[in-house]
Parts: sequence; structure tokens; C-alpha cells
Amino acid sequence: MDNAIVSRRDLDFLLYEWLDVVSLCQRPAYAEHTRETFDAVIELSAKLAMLEFLPHYKKADHVEPSFENGVVTVLPEIKHAIEAYADAGMFGASFGTELGGQQFPNTIHTASLGIFMAANIATASYPMLSVANARLIAKYGAPAQIEAFAQPQIEGRWLGTMCLSEPQAGSGLGDIVTRAVDDGEDSRGKRFRITGNKMWISGGDHDITENIVHLVLAKVVDGNGKLPPGAKGISLFIVPKILSEADGGANERNDIVVAGLNHKMGYRGTTNCLLNLGEGAFAPKGSPGAIGYLVGEIGQGLPIMFQMMNEARISVGLGAAMLGYRGHLLSVAYARQRVQGRRLGSGDVTAKPVAIIEHPDVRRMLLAQKSYVEGALALVLYTARLVDEERAAPTAAERANAADVLGLLTPVAKTWPSEWGLTANDLAIQIHGGYGYTRDFDVEQLYRDNRLNAIHEGTTGIQALDLLGRKIIKDRGRGLAQFEHRVARTLTAAGSYPKLARHAADLASSWNDIDAIAKQVCGLDDGAEALQNATPFLSAFGHFVVAWIWLEQAIIASAAKSASTGSKFYEGKLRACRYFYECELPKVSIWLAFVRTLSDVSGRAESDIF
Amino acid sequence: MDNAIVSRRDLDFLLYEWLDVVSLCQRPAYAEHTRETFDAVIELSAKLAMLEFLPHYKKADHVEPSFENGVVTVLPEIKHAIEAYADAGMFGASFGTELGGQQFPNTIHTASLGIFMAANIATASYPMLSVANARLIAKYGAPAQIEAFAQPQIEGRWLGTMCLSEPQAGSGLGDIVTRAVDDGEDSRGKRFRITGNKMWISGGDHDITENIVHLVLAKVVDGNGKLPPGAKGISLFIVPKILSEADGGANERNDIVVAGLNHKMGYRGTTNCLLNLGEGAFAPKGSPGAIGYLVGEIGQGLPIMFQMMNEARISVGLGAAMLGYRGHLLSVAYARQRVQGRRLGSGDVTAKPVAIIEHPDVRRMLLAQKSYVEGALALVLYTARLVDEERAAPTAAERANAADVLGLLTPVAKTWPSEWGLTANDLAIQIHGGYGYTRDFDVEQLYRDNRLNAIHEGTTGIQALDLLGRKIIKDRGRGLAQFEHRVARTLTAAGSYPKLARHAADLASSWNDIDAIAKQVCGLDDGAEALQNATPFLSAFGHFVVAWIWLEQAIIASAAKSASTGSKFYEGKLRACRYFYECELPKVSIWLAFVRTLSDVSGRAESDIF
Repeated sequence: MDNAIVSRRDLDFLLYEWLDVVSLCQRPAYAEHTRETFDAVIELSAKLAMLEFLPHYKKADHVEPSFENGVVTVLPEIKHAIEAYADAGMFGASFGTELGGQQFPNTIHTASLGIFMAANIATASYPMLSVANARLIAKYGAPAQIEAFAQPQIEGRWLGTMCLSEPQAGSGLGDIVTRAVDDGEDSRGKRFRITGNKMWISGGDHDITENIVHLVLAKVVDGNGKLPPGAKGISLFIVPKILSEADGGANERNDIVVAGLNHKMGYRGTTNCLLNLGEGAFAPKGSPGAIGYLVGEIGQGLPIMFQMMNEARISVGLGAAMLGYRGHLLSVAYARQRVQGRRLGSGDVTAKPVAIIEHPDVRRMLLAQKSYVEGALALVLYTARLVDEERAAPTAAERANAADVLGLLTPVAKTWPSEWGLTANDLAIQIHGGYGYTRDFDVEQLYRDNRLNAIHEGTTGIQALDLLGRKIIKDRGRGLAQFEHRVARTLTAAGSYPKLARHAADLASSWNDIDAIAKQVCGLDDGAEALQNATPFLSAFGHFVVAWIWLEQAIIASAAKSASTGSKFYEGKLRACRYFYECELPKVSIWLAFVRTLSDVSGRAESDIF
Repeated sequence: MDNAIVSRRDLDFLLYEWLDVVSLCQRPAYAEHTRETFDAVIELSAKLAMLEFLPHYKKADHVEPSFENGVVTVLPEIKHAIEAYADAGMFGASFGTELGGQQFPNTIHTASLGIFMAANIATASYPMLSVANARLIAKYGAPAQIEAFAQPQIEGRWLGTMCLSEPQAGSGLGDIVTRAVDDGEDSRGKRFRITGNKMWISGGDHDITENIVHLVLAKVVDGNGKLPPGAKGISLFIVPKILSEADGGANERNDIVVAGLNHKMGYRGTTNCLLNLGEGAFAPKGSPGAIGYLVGEIGQGLPIMFQMMNEARISVGLGAAMLGYRGHLLSVAYARQRVQGRRLGSGDVTAKPVAIIEHPDVRRMLLAQKSYVEGALALVLYTARLVDEERAAPTAAERANAADVLGLLTPVAKTWPSEWGLTANDLAIQIHGGYGYTRDFDVEQLYRDNRLNAIHEGTTGIQALDLLGRKIIKDRGRGLAQFEHRVARTLTAAGSYPKLARHAADLASSWNDIDAIAKQVCGLDDGAEALQNATPFLSAFGHFVVAWIWLEQAIIASAAKSASTGSKFYEGKLRACRYFYECELPKVSIWLAFVRTLSDVSGRAESDIF
């Protein structure tokens, strides 16, 4: 694998030395797999990503999707890449064999997806969404829906979307006004006619595949034609772009059309659409109204959608980590090759200039990047591993435990890479100097692309409310208590390495602060008082979690280093860990202070002082 | 003035209530001026900025400068705006009456320039550079050079550039290889023929004005045709694009041509060029080689150039502050108007949604922005005021004191707004949600534009070496000692306001840390040991300085608030000050720890661990 998109050495370290993914092969679900099949899919991913995804990374930024005469057209290279992805069976990699998939563990699927995202985030977003879409239908859809709408996506013949936001309702989904009216039933299930506007729909239209499977949140009108209030009134519908012959039509267009494309700062290869449903652009089965098939029960839309949202949130974190990661690798390569200035403290102006990697400040930036991007990737792979535990751990207790910790870490896995992967991309530009600010170098595009990740699939503020409000206060700290055991095990393991003693002590002290504050807020009469500072809490908890993950990595590296000859790779892990503990972990107490003191500096700021 | 580009209320506060700019009118240099003439130029700037600069902000981003058949063409609106700026006499506003200027104090000139930058940073960069170019020539040029090259810029008929970097030498100017060979003398001074390549030249070519005055750093070859080593071998030359008839030619082209334009992430309206000098594209006075006139003495190029560089550095900080500032104003307007979600803690899903400014997390982001952008603008105006003191204070001691403090604060005024103004722009996107990531809203462009500012005119790393290496270690803390008196005066004044006591105590404690570390590093045998962590020191010192400036503002606000009825404006100042002390000042000790412990985490990181 070429280092230009991801470090294979690091991936092997994370998957095999740290997460021991091979042990999953002892589980019945993954018994067909071995280290060899894992390596093969990683190799294949890297090869395909280099050949089919990376080459049009910049071109897809420059040549944006177009929308003319009702038709959305993307760069032909995107269609070609998706076809290659499908031909290689990648769409089905994480699905069960009963659905024609290859039943790879989620951790391996995640690593594979990450490689494609590093090469070309915009192109990789199409399969990411489709796989999550198909997985939702496979879990909650009726058999006929699975066959009609999930299967073509698992085969990579169609793509899928998630349609949640509306122009007036993004973060506040309870306020959506898309209407669903009963329209009888057919072989695909209960049929509704849907009317409304959906905003920010990634992959909402394109000419890549012949059909698109939209998963649409809407509200079923009551007897008086009114919408039920709040999130509990939301239902979920499958709305295909084209109704196939089997649906009773003759491959006719459903009444869902593009109203316009959004023109974004980055991620430009992924179309992003405002969709109009039911405005009469087409009259499927003889009358206007977008035909949608109910998934699950009426009013269960949001809980069901959360399966796809949670997968998409972790994938957003993965993409953010990989954008940062590629920027780091490009920075290292540039810093080794770019010659400028003399060694610090050298007064000899006739001495030969050195590569900028010799300058302490450049190393500081490289180390910061390394601690962010390797920490972010490790975090996301850890949550991916929890998904495998949730699905396939031997006992119900272990599965429940994994689910609890996964719930706790999902907002972190979404947010932390989005915030700090972007910081890594910012440093990549800085390391490249003026060149990094030009469009001749990929680092400026990586930065623009990554800026989206703190916004879509729930902003950082929304993730913070999920973490503190739902996963800690509402769940009474259940996930946190499960997580504590894992931290404790790490601290015990660190005890074998005297050089890690100070890091372990710092981590333990930080844990005590977090734990005390979690107990404090769970005991408050009014959770809103704590939630004012939910975002600083998420910042603190995220930094804590990544510090813990760095200590985990440092333990493996310490063991490996003392066993073998001191390899540079392990030294790098230990140095990045030290950097994180010296420079980043101390920030936790600043953020926590807001929550501990229930600071009202923001919450009570009156809006007319601005 | 329309709030869309800057808050006139805040500008009045900073200029008149805090910096007492009217008191400058007692100085002979500014005796012709009054509050009324100051207000008039601010009003005029705001009007021109709204009418001529703001309207093409987005268009100049979309329609980039072109380079065809050797000709660089910019958007006609840019030329039109520059002509309007010239017609209003703005080019001459800060020059002495003997040069046809209006002799405004630098503080007022800076505020005026900031307004134009807020409206359109790329267009405003042309006059910014020309004014600094003309000021250098006016100070160091011979009378004939002033007449020939400064005067047309002061009148706004020509524009000017600074040509320092080369493709292989950006931050390391000592390694430039542009050659200057003696070519006799004429009425403009000592003439040289110059050969080389200059990179990153803003305004390096365009069709805005008929001529362009380049200030070019080059090295005069010795008797053996060799270049002197290091920065001390650098000389400065005026290289006009067109040699006028008075220069002996018939308006003939000099041998300086564009090799290509750089295509940037932002700041796109400002052309940025690779220039080739002396490659024989033209043969002025009958032979190839760019004709350049020596300014000052041979070998004095860099110290002379520093006058323009220092002015440009503060202007970069000003631009960064203003980009952040406009993003903040747009954020406030959007947050008041965008309705989404319900008040935190409200369980009533049927309640009316509220404007997002009611959400604590949005207020947190608005407060953070406010503390950054108002702090940054105040910092830059403070340094601008120091320039006035340096030029026009009654006594030599006062002028020297101002010069010392100005030297200390220049790297801060350049860097702090660049880093934190960008953070404010990042928050502006976040407040706008998905909309902020689209090119339909200005906040995404403000963010892209602002990313340049930590790079050009000396990267953050270079500024950090200037601060710690030159302004503290090399100057043995002289500027810092002068600065201490100012901090002490603030602490004394804060003593009158019990509510500010805690802020004052925190600031005093932070000062003690900085002062101790400065003394510690000045006492080191090997400054390089401290300079490894120059950037964390700059981060710490920058935050300290802005905290001090916030306390200064809070004192004025406290006095005004208790005298008048409690105005919302002053409450806003006090709230932003509290935010900065609660959330930002604590970071100082984290950054300082690196310097105090002489941490080698980055400095000793081996390059092969990456």
C-alpha cells in the first residue's frame, strides 16, 4: 500500500496488535474469515482506492456536479469508481452471506471504507450511505422490501440516501412538516403519498446508478389532515426514485425531483440536493404524490432511523480522521523534502539549509497531527470493534455492555475526529507554507472537505447534548460505568511499564474529575443547568477518551519495543502519546470547570448584548 | 455605517473611549485634526466600502484573475473600487501634507483600512501594500525616488508591491539568489540590473493601474560574480514595471514579467504572482536585465524592508481581525433570525421554536467570537496607536518606549488575530450550520480568506522566533519591562471596580508566570533550548496580551456603565471579558509549561519516527 493515503503499518498495528481483530474469527459469525482474508480485503481496498478513487480527487472538486433540465450529472470518473467498487464486491463486504455478502467483521469493513475515504471522501460517501441504508432496510424492512430495495444496494447496482432535514428543520427534526397520507398497500408494504421538501440530501440525485433508494422521514397525517407534534410523530418511508415494474409501474419516475444543488466549500463530488416530494412533477400510478413504503411502524421513524444515523455518525468520524490522516502523511513527505533555513541556534549563514522536518516547530506540528489523526483513527476503529462485540460477542451481557459503551462513544467518535482532524488539516497547510494555501497541493482541499464533518449528521452541539443529556444524565451514567472498567484495565496494564506511570497517573486523575462531574450532573434537579455547557463537556470527555486510547497504544508499543529491537514505529507511538499527555490532556480541566461550576457565562448571556 | 461590515459603536468605543485618539490632536503633527475630521474619514470609509468594495466580494472569489498572452486581468470592479479609493484621497490619508497627504494619525488610518478590509480583503490589499511601499520610499528613498515612485502611489495612480520570497526561499530570506549587477547611475539613483525569480508576490501584476512599483530584495554580486551569504548581503531596489520617459525610456517595459499566477484557497481577488526578472523578455535601455534603483545602502536591504514588513504585519493582523469581525456580525444576525429547536430543558414539543440565539451553545459560540474579534481589533488598534506615539510623542523617551513596546507587540498583532480570527470564522460557519458550508453565504469565504493570514508576511512560527528570540532574548527583555508598566497601570485602575478584582488577580498571576519565564530564558546559555517552544510561548503571550486588553476594555465599560444607565453595549463588553477570563486565559499556563520545563517533546523528536 502506498503511504500516500494511509499508513499500512499503523493500520496493522491498530487492527492486529491492538484490537486483535483476528480473535473475532473464533466467533461463529466470522468463522469463515482469517487474517489472510482480512489482509486481502485491505490490500484490495488500497489498490482500488489508489487506482479508481484518488486520481479524480482534485478534478471532482473543480468540476462540480451539474443540474440541467432536471438531470443531475456527476463526473464520469465517479460513476466508474463506484462500478469498480461494486465489481469488487465491496458493497456487500459487511453483509451476511444470506444477503449475498461476505460477512466481514465491521472493524475490517470500517478500515476498508477508511482507505477509500482517505483517497476520495466525496466519492466514498456514496457507498458509505448506501451500505448504511441497505443495512437499515435489511434489519427493519419486510422481506419484500429487503429484496426490492436493500439487495440492489448490496450488489452495488443502486445507491441510497437518508432524507431527514428540511429547509426549516435541520437539528430540530421534531419540526419536520413532510406529510404522508395513506395510499393503500401493495407487495412492497403499506403505501403512502408523501409531500414535502428535504434539504442537504447527500447523493440525493446523480447519474451514477439507474435508481436511488431514499429513506425519508415524514409524519403521517391524522384524521383531520394534521401532523402529529414532535419527534414521536415521525415515521420512516422507502421512496425509490424509479418505481420498478414489480411495483406495478413500468419503471416510472416517482414524484421526487431535485429543486436545486447546494454548492459547498468542499466535498463537492458528493451531490447535495434540495428534493421536492409530491409536487406533481410526476404522477406515479396515475396521480401526483411521492410513493413511499412504510418501514416498521408508524411513529417509529426516528428510533429506526437512528440505526443508520449512528452508522453514518461513526462514518463521519472515520472520514474526518482519514482526511486528517492523509494530510499528515503529505505533511511528513513535504517536510522531509522541503529545504529551508538552518538548524535552530546555528549562527553559520554559510551552512547548508536543512529539510524543514529538522525544525522543532515543524516537528511540533507533525507530532500534534500524529497525535490527532492516529488517535482519531484508533478511536473510530475501537467503536467499530464495539459494533462487532454488540453483534457477535458470546454472551448477552457482553453484547449489552458493548452496546452501552458504543452508545457513550458514538458522539465522541463522530465529533472528536471532526474537530481535531480538521486541526490536523490546518497544520498541514501551515507546514506547506504558501504552497499549502494553493490549489496545486491537496492539503487545501482536505481542509475544505473536512470542515463539513462537524456539521452533517448532527453538529458538534447536537452530539454534546446526546452525550451529556442522553448518554449520561438520562441513562444515569450506565455506559460511563461500563466504560470505567475498560479504563481501569488500561491503568492496570500500564503498571507494568514504569515509563508510562506518569501518563497513567494523569489519566486516572482526569478520570476522577470526569466521574465526579458526571455524578454531580446526574444528581441535579435541573439537567438544563448542566446542559448549558454540554459542548465543553464533550470536548473534555473526547480528549480524555483519546488520551486513554493513546495510553492503550503506548502499552502495546512499550511491550513490542522491549521485546524486539527498538523500532522507530513504536518510538513514534510513544512520542505521540507523550505529546498528547503533555500538550492536550491538560486542557480537560479547563473545559470541565465550566460544567463543575455550572458556569452561566454563555447560558445567561442576554441575546441583546450582541 | 451599516453593521454588516463593522460595528461603528465598537469602533467609537475603541478609538475614543479607550484609546483617546482625540488627544493626539494636541500634538503638532496632528494639530489640523479634530474628532470631526476623524469621524468624517471613518464615515467616508464606511460609505465607500459598502458601495465599492463589498458588492464584488463574492464575485472576485468566483471570477479569479486571469493570465493570458502575458497580460494579467482582474475583475473590472476591483479597478473601479481602487479608483474610487484614490478619488477620495484615501491613499494619501496617512501621509504628511508635504507629500500631498492628509496627515491623519495612524490609528485613524488603520481603522479606516480595517473597514475596507472587512468589506473586501482582497481588493483592500492593493492599497494596503501600496501605502506601505510608498511610506518606505518616502522614508528611505532619495528625493528623486520619492517624487518618481512614492508620489504616484500616494496619489493612487500607481500601485506597489513587496518582492521578498523566492520559490526556494520563503521564511529563509538569507538564502535568496536574485542577483543585482551594477549598471551605472541616472537621475533616479544607483542603477542595477536584476535577475531572479520572486514568488508569492501579491499585486505582482494586474490591469488596475498603468504602472507598478516593485520593492525587490536582491544581492549585489561581488567582484567574482558571487552572492554574499546570509541576510546581511541583501539590498533593496525599486523596480518599476514601466520605465517612464523621465527614466530615459519612452514608457518602455522593464524586464520583469509574470511567469504564472498562484491559485489560492481564498484572497482570490488579490493577484499572486511568480515574477521573472531579467530573463530577457524585454530589453530596457537596449539590453536585458530588470532595471532596479538602489534604496539606501548596499547590504541594508533587510533592515530597511522591515519598515514595510512591520506595517504589513500589523495590516495582516488587522485584516484577520476584520474577517473574523464581519463573520461575527453575520453570525449574530443569522442567530437572531434562524428559528430552530426549543429552549433547553423545555419538554413541550408543541411550544413555538425559538431563534437559535436563545440556545446556550450558540451564545457560547457568539461570545467566543466576540471575545476573539473585538479583542483582535482592539489589539491591532493599540499597536496602531503605538505607531502614533513612536512618531509623535512629545519626548524622545516616550517615543523610544513606544517603539520598544511596538516591537514586542508586532508579532502578537500579526499572529493572534490570524489564529483566533480564523477560529471566529470557523464558529461563524458552525452557527450557520449546513448553510454556512455553502457558497451562498459569505461566512465560508471569510473562513477561506482568513486562512492565509497565519502564513503570509511571516508564518506563526517565524513570528514566534521574532518574539522570543529577538524581542525577548536578544533585547534582554527591554520591551517586556516597558510593557510591564502598562500592565501595572491597568491593574491599578481595575482596583476601583470590585467586580473586576478576580480578573485583575488572574491577570497579575499570569503576568508573574510570563515574567519569570522570560527571565529564565534570558538567563539560559543556549537560547535554542527555549526557542524549541517559541510557538507555545507566542500562544501564551498573545492570550495574555488580549486578556490585558479585555481588562482595559472592562474598566472603561465599568466606569461608563455605572455613570450612565446600564447600556447593553457595556454589558456585552463585560460579558465577553468574563468569557475570555473563564475560558481562554487558563490556557496560558498549559502553553507556558513547555517553555518553563524546556520540554524537548518536539525538539528531540527524531525525524524518522514519522
